[in-house]
Amino acid sequence: MNHLLLVAHGSRRASSNEEVHRLAEQLKSLAGTQYADVSAAFLELVEPSIPAAIQTAIDKAAQEIIVLPYFLSRGRHVVTDVPTQVQIKQTEYPQVKITIAPYLGAEQASLAALLLEILSKHHE
Amino acid sequence: MNHLLLVAHGSRRASSNEEVHRLAEQLKSLAGTQYADVSAAFLELVEPSIPAAIQTAIDKAAQEIIVLPYFLSRGRHVVTDVPTQVQIKQTEYPQVKITIAPYLGAEQASLAALLLEILSKHHE
Repeated sequence: MNHLLLVAHGSRRASSNEEVHRLAEQLKSLAGTQYADVSAAFLELVEPSIPAAIQTAIDKAAQEIIVLPYFLSRGRHVVTDVPTQVQIKQTEYPQVKITIAPYLGAEQASLAALLLEILSKHHE
Repeated sequence: MNHLLLVAHGSRRASSNEEVHRLAEQLKSLAGTQYADVSAAFLELVEPSIPAAIQTAIDKAAQEIIVLPYFLSRGRHVVTDVPTQVQIKQTEYPQVKITIAPYLGAEQASLAALLLEILSKHHE
């Protein structure tokens, strides 16, 4: 059982956090059978926290958890904060394989293509 | 002469801001002749500010400026702060057409596909 955990910053605006949950649902339907489950967690301000979401996945029998940082820049959150919170649960559950995928912003070429797609719609 | 202005938040980490400048360069080469020029601006902390970058584009004879918000969530920055800074220059130069394209995070379906692309590389 593998679990994909989309991790966003967390916002005071409920609508921003709902966007992240919707994106997790979209990932779940797009990924098909690739992941047994997909959920969202937040680094700050909003529940579930990263450790809480990892715990929930483990309670649901996840043996592998892939953390996907939904961040644009390689700042402190990506470099330090997300890994630190993940490590708390990795230490607690050494038998579960937890990995952190590259953050969204690292995919510059794909992001550039996506931005041009947005622009082409804007110009229509 | 049209000008594409990529607007990011701005970070205390120089490397994050350099990423944004590199992305603007990538957009310029990918977009071909679609935009006469492409540059980057920052909402906070870093120069050039949005008004300064718009001024530079106008000084270089831009008649149309497309502002592209490089933000993931529809928070205060996207809803209020970027439009407010753009409006300062629009009021000063009513003859220049300045529009704001949808923010990156609005493209949920494309972002989901991109995230799965990141994951497929992570699993290789």
